Amino acid sequence: MSSVSYVNGSYVDHSEARVSIEDRGYQFADGVYEVFAVINKKIVDYDDHLNRLFRSLKEISLDTPIAKDAYLVHIRNLVRKNYITNGIIYLQVSRGVASRDFKFPINTKPSIVITAKRISMENYYEKFKRGIKVKITEDLRWKRVDIKTLNLLPPVLAKQEAIESGCDEAWMTDANGYITEGSSSNAWILIKNKLITTPTSSSILKGITRTTLIRSLKNKNIQLIEKRFNKKDIKKSSEAFITSATQFVMPVIKIDNDKIGNGRVGKFAQIFRESYMEAIQLK
Amino acid sequence: MSSVSYVNGSYVDHSEARVSIEDRGYQFADGVYEVFAVINKKIVDYDDHLNRLFRSLKEISLDTPIAKDAYLVHIRNLVRKNYITNGIIYLQVSRGVASRDFKFPINTKPSIVITAKRISMENYYEKFKRGIKVKITEDLRWKRVDIKTLNLLPPVLAKQEAIESGCDEAWMTDANGYITEGSSSNAWILIKNKLITTPTSSSILKGITRTTLIRSLKNKNIQLIEKRFNKKDIKKSSEAFITSATQFVMPVIKIDNDKIGNGRVGKFAQIFRESYMEAIQLK
Repeated sequence: MSSVSYVNGSYVDHSEARVSIEDRGYQFADGVYEVFAVINKKIVDYDDHLNRLFRSLKEISLDTPIAKDAYLVHIRNLVRKNYITNGIIYLQVSRGVASRDFKFPINTKPSIVITAKRISMENYYEKFKRGIKVKITEDLRWKRVDIKTLNLLPPVLAKQEAIESGCDEAWMTDANGYITEGSSSNAWILIKNKLITTPTSSSILKGITRTTLIRSLKNKNIQLIEKRFNKKDIKKSSEAFITSATQFVMPVIKIDNDKIGNGRVGKFAQIFRESYMEAIQLK
Repeated sequence: MSSVSYVNGSYVDHSEARVSIEDRGYQFADGVYEVFAVINKKIVDYDDHLNRLFRSLKEISLDTPIAKDAYLVHIRNLVRKNYITNGIIYLQVSRGVASRDFKFPINTKPSIVITAKRISMENYYEKFKRGIKVKITEDLRWKRVDIKTLNLLPPVLAKQEAIESGCDEAWMTDANGYITEGSSSNAWILIKNKLITTPTSSSILKGITRTTLIRSLKNKNIQLIEKRFNKKDIKKSSEAFITSATQFVMPVIKIDNDKIGNGRVGKFAQIFRESYMEAIQLK
């Protein structure tokens, strides 16, 4: 089925949606992005994602090409035009089209692209029941991964390494052997009923799903500790999870060759997913 | 004047040259590139650049979309179609068009884009006479900058920081304060008539101009030392330079607030430029 995308002011057939070969997103990865989940035609955690987009833009000194209010209009239009009940909105802003030169171009309007696709919540729940496998890889990324930029080849290579090992996601380790995060998710383990996740810094992306889950657990009787963890800690864990805008909460049943707990989805996975699903702000 | 570019099998008007918004070069910086100088209609150091391109492709597990011999055909065609005497050829290969997903797509043909533009050798010689200014910045890049990938936002930000300080190039320092390289060039200093440049590793790109210059100096009475250097070493230097495919050898007359030597282009700059210009292989 054909779908509709938004490209620099126009709604276009997705298969025809194009940008200049001199868009700085294409030649320099000079841009930032966000991914929004859509559940029941509503956008999940919209304000948090949009605020993070604006933070990312600011961090790389890039102006928004459209008014802040216009983002929601275009996203809602794509949800409607693509008949999306459950799905994903992908949005990127790059520094626009200019003759190739490392320095910023002057008077160039940034480019904006928004796409939409459907996802099946049934597939998500099925995958949740099975859980996923994680491969430990080396974190090769740059020093400002707190900014959600298009410089994604390092996590692409990490993900692919995981896939080729029969896994679903990579957890990347820093020079000291600590897990930073997944290639496109945040990483969590549970030790003695305590939930542990890597603290935010310039070495991880501050996930919106991560933030919402933490907020949702505040009034529940679950202890959360934001601290670094390594392979030894993983061996002690009874459950493990990832969070991301498109995977929500997803249990991890195996990391490298080690089963987590008994190798099946644990009871906290369910609790965290429900806590998250209760807490999400829909717009 | 309109120019002609090569995009995925076709020669197209540059201003009309486009790629899909789902090209992985655009969404993931999932690709590699090369820049070739053209002097007197000949391509400089062609074999070395092409071999490096094929190494980069291999390092990120990307197949060439065209036969190795075809690159030279297309590049020569662009030189001819764009009436280039002196100029620059830019060439990039990305992992092609696929529905957005971090893992590699299956059965997707890589994309290739080649563009050409004119440069003025007179402008180069004028700039050489003036020399350039360098700003020291922090090297924020990923751990495999020996691969010439599209993940260029970190050096873009470094270059821009230099520009905004009234400089022309950034020299980036690692966590130990050693200069790795320029944002789009290799870095050199001269101390007591000894030429010093950062040794190759995964922390710098092995510049083709760098290699050619080193080769050209072999039979000359100039001592070259490949070793790391820091700000203290720079303060002791009597001359400094950058090398790149488009700047050839370019003297540096000021680094941060420190004049190099007497703040004018030194005599070795001329010697190295001539040595390089003598040595370049034209095709």
